[in-house]
Amino acid sequence: MNAIVTDIVGGAVADHTRNINAFIRATHFDHPTLVLDRSIVAEQYDALKLGLGRANIHYAVKANPAREILEVLIAKGSHFDAASRGEIELCLSLGAAPSDISFGNTVKRASDIAFAHQAGLTIFAADAEEELEKIAENAPDAEVYIRLIVDASEADWPLTRKFGCARDKALGLLAYATNLGLRPVGFSFHVGSQTRRAEMWRTTLDQVADVWRAAQNAGYVLDLLNIGGGFPAFYGEAIQHPTAYAAEVMAQVTARFGDVARIMAEPGRGMVAEAGMIAAEVLLVSRKSDNDMHRWVYLDIGKFSGLAETMDEAIRYQFVTDRDHEDMGPCILAGPSCDSADVLYEKKLIGLPLGLRSGDKVIIRNCGAYTSSYSSVGFNGFPPLDVVVI
Amino acid sequence: MNAIVTDIVGGAVADHTRNINAFIRATHFDHPTLVLDRSIVAEQYDALKLGLGRANIHYAVKANPAREILEVLIAKGSHFDAASRGEIELCLSLGAAPSDISFGNTVKRASDIAFAHQAGLTIFAADAEEELEKIAENAPDAEVYIRLIVDASEADWPLTRKFGCARDKALGLLAYATNLGLRPVGFSFHVGSQTRRAEMWRTTLDQVADVWRAAQNAGYVLDLLNIGGGFPAFYGEAIQHPTAYAAEVMAQVTARFGDVARIMAEPGRGMVAEAGMIAAEVLLVSRKSDNDMHRWVYLDIGKFSGLAETMDEAIRYQFVTDRDHEDMGPCILAGPSCDSADVLYEKKLIGLPLGLRSGDKVIIRNCGAYTSSYSSVGFNGFPPLDVVVI
Repeated sequence: MNAIVTDIVGGAVADHTRNINAFIRATHFDHPTLVLDRSIVAEQYDALKLGLGRANIHYAVKANPAREILEVLIAKGSHFDAASRGEIELCLSLGAAPSDISFGNTVKRASDIAFAHQAGLTIFAADAEEELEKIAENAPDAEVYIRLIVDASEADWPLTRKFGCARDKALGLLAYATNLGLRPVGFSFHVGSQTRRAEMWRTTLDQVADVWRAAQNAGYVLDLLNIGGGFPAFYGEAIQHPTAYAAEVMAQVTARFGDVARIMAEPGRGMVAEAGMIAAEVLLVSRKSDNDMHRWVYLDIGKFSGLAETMDEAIRYQFVTDRDHEDMGPCILAGPSCDSADVLYEKKLIGLPLGLRSGDKVIIRNCGAYTSSYSSVGFNGFPPLDVVVI
Repeated sequence: MNAIVTDIVGGAVADHTRNINAFIRATHFDHPTLVLDRSIVAEQYDALKLGLGRANIHYAVKANPAREILEVLIAKGSHFDAASRGEIELCLSLGAAPSDISFGNTVKRASDIAFAHQAGLTIFAADAEEELEKIAENAPDAEVYIRLIVDASEADWPLTRKFGCARDKALGLLAYATNLGLRPVGFSFHVGSQTRRAEMWRTTLDQVADVWRAAQNAGYVLDLLNIGGGFPAFYGEAIQHPTAYAAEVMAQVTARFGDVARIMAEPGRGMVAEAGMIAAEVLLVSRKSDNDMHRWVYLDIGKFSGLAETMDEAIRYQFVTDRDHEDMGPCILAGPSCDSADVLYEKKLIGLPLGLRSGDKVIIRNCGAYTSSYSSVGFNGFPPLDVVVI
């Protein structure tokens, strides 16, 4: 096929990426470039919001902090989840209301908490005593939610234990927050990145509901449940339509938590991944040995210039070339830097045209999330990933 | 100890880092900051050059492209190995002679080869037919050296098969280069990053010498041997003094290759790692569960803001705090971003003071190589790693 294949999402066919595709095909790029279509972000917000219903969307800014994306979401009425002072300043500078921004990083610099408090933010995440102490000192009276560790074995990219506290500490942290003069209002969790089907939330929601009930039984009045992210993007394996997915998640939430006053959802990848494609180029096709089974294909973009999520081959991007109607064969895919770790896919090979050669254009699909902001400042002297918003 | 412990290198004791240490202790940093001491770079150049003798040092710019470092090295008479057009432009802008810069990336954009040729560069690396074709087209008459894959099992961080060709292709590529009108002048290889003792070069040099002799027997006149990098830095395990190390490597080279007209060596890490320390801060110390054996310590710097080489816990940095005279205990070390992959050391724990807490300053030793340039442009809204040169 010479054209971008259309997405098959929940059985429906959508070719919402045709504008990006046309733009990339009509444009010459000197460097790898992420092309984002703001209309896809707007559509995805509407689709998710329709399914999420009464839940507030707090877009996870870290997924893609492009100003044009944030402006679209502010206009739509989205709320925001910020990881740092830098992200808070960015949202505020574009007109987001401070009360619509949560400071969701459980590891915050004390002076950044003070800044956020002064700026008018009222909701902070925590998973440890010392974090609560910093919040109490720098944002007295703030609302806090406690992040829980959950077992998230069904996600494509399960999270480590880096964030959250175990259940045995959860109630103690609520009590500690109260003693510090804070207002503990609920819990948060993360089901795991790229959780492809809504039914995969079940076990996690059961775990969180157990803690929620234990807290209620202990007399805590909880009114905030933050269901985090995990909303998937299409990387080759079928996913549900975002509205159906979100509605099914919310039905499971309601079945377990009833009519909680405030529900927050933090889609990041699920909001923007499908709104962007990277225009890249083949730099070299080679074989290491005369007997080599596989080709090596080197692109002008790699692990240190935007494709960091190929780490451990976790996220498997899809590649489109002008030769996709020709015979295909497996290859190892690598980036352009003089770094032996800059290999994208080697354990599970990528099928690419046998005729592929240096200078050929490659479109990498669904790259709108976790690419441009991961890009290095200039590793090997390569400039950071260019971003163009259409 | 309250002061930086002194390096024990090859049995000798050197406290060449006292100026950085004093600067960090006297300075307040708002963000993690890499402090580089240019006098250590100058000393290290002299020490390596003394051992390398007739070999030309081509500093691997990618290890740290700070202008002040390049200026010191230009003044010393160093040559440079560039990975990209960006690095070539940087070296030229600071006064390096084009004939002193090699374009050592085996994966080059065709237009960058043309730029380099126009700028006066004459030596290019290649490991595949298509790369030779690009060089022949864009830099006719250029000198090329062929990079070989070697087995480098003794390095702390062995390289993948990303770079180089197998031995069965080496002579064929020399012939192909000749047919294309290029001047094939020799071979290059890389013994593996952080090869701690010179004796570990033995097997690799034997392999390369086999290919070298085969090429000579086939009638090729070779006059360039590029022995690449691999020169180690001190990360806690004893290493030889750089002069002794380099001299021993050169003795092995001479024993195998005789009086080759031109020898290139490309230290990067070995030139600059020990010239820099990062001033960082503890953001949070916590336990995930009441029964947790280990603490989690979160710093304000992580995998995406400069410490990318903690990937797979490959490089083990050393940490110094003001509490190092207190009781110590093992902990998991993590970065500040909302990314579950941003964990620095978890499989092999790090010993840190039991009294460590949020706000404490942490000095990370020997961070002058492969840190600042790996830093992301702004993942999670955190600014790139600051760099200060003293």
